[in-house]
Amino acid sequence: MLELEAQPLTPKAFAPFGDVIDPRVSDYFHINAGRTRRYHDLARVETLGEKAHTLISIFVSQPVEVPLELRFLERHPRGSQAFVPMHEERFLVVVAPRGEAIEPAEVRAFVTDGRQGVNYRAGTWHAIQSVLGREGEFLVVDRGGEGDNCDEHPIDIRVTLPPGEAFAPTHSEQESTS
Amino acid sequence: MLELEAQPLTPKAFAPFGDVIDPRVSDYFHINAGRTRRYHDLARVETLGEKAHTLISIFVSQPVEVPLELRFLERHPRGSQAFVPMHEERFLVVVAPRGEAIEPAEVRAFVTDGRQGVNYRAGTWHAIQSVLGREGEFLVVDRGGEGDNCDEHPIDIRVTLPPGEAFAPTHSEQESTS
Repeated sequence: MLELEAQPLTPKAFAPFGDVIDPRVSDYFHINAGRTRRYHDLARVETLGEKAHTLISIFVSQPVEVPLELRFLERHPRGSQAFVPMHEERFLVVVAPRGEAIEPAEVRAFVTDGRQGVNYRAGTWHAIQSVLGREGEFLVVDRGGEGDNCDEHPIDIRVTLPPGEAFAPTHSEQESTS
Repeated sequence: MLELEAQPLTPKAFAPFGDVIDPRVSDYFHINAGRTRRYHDLARVETLGEKAHTLISIFVSQPVEVPLELRFLERHPRGSQAFVPMHEERFLVVVAPRGEAIEPAEVRAFVTDGRQGVNYRAGTWHAIQSVLGREGEFLVVDRGGEGDNCDEHPIDIRVTLPPGEAFAPTHSEQESTS
């Protein structure tokens, strides 16, 4: 069992795995006669292969238990996958570099601060969406098209939060059975 | 001056112009062993022309005055443009059908309810982002690439809110000069 304490997510630490989507660390320019700041091109959207296209979807996820116990990571070899919280949800991000095997020493765990989204580069190994504390709603930008685009790799990982961080999951009543 | 009272946004009324991005009116399937509902493929992302790609950006917009007075609509002939509120912001949506000219009788004005995003089809005439009441933060999915992709068409439009709806714009201090 690999034991990891989640670290605060930063663009530098996450760079090998993809993009942090966060206007606070991004450049902008003004549009709309100065009314709007455009934080431009914050994530590399990858849709590889023939007949591929970009999808906009919404994921509504039940919160995870903490410590988070994982039995596998997954990857999407043909496309990137971006998650942006729609109500400042915080979530855990567990990743490993692209490649056929997962080297335990290279697995990283991060915790977002509620204003951050992430974009996993095509092929980056990652945990399923792991929202903290409450049901979460995320805008997701990923790939549609032909060809298998999801692999799983078994690995046992246990992720804890930094000292002082605590989330007690609360399940919404309508979804208590899912 | 074209005078319009904004109507509540519905997928049916907006269908000629694009997509309403809203899980409440969309189908889903379960993923992640039942933990997540995926509301799948909610908007048609269009990136037309050579060397085009999908962008993920964030727009931070100052609120509009209401009634909203417009002098032009704009369009992006080579790509769709999606706006999804990141903090349940409400906004006005003013649109006209694709085509070289804007027929005043075909202009429509809508107001969102805070849970709705929109995706303008490539070529749909629309107002610049018009958030109500407070500074708004929107995830934007649109097109990058070669070629001109923004036209403006002059038209004078005045948009009011339905009776009982009122928003007093509040400008954030840090952006009072923009």
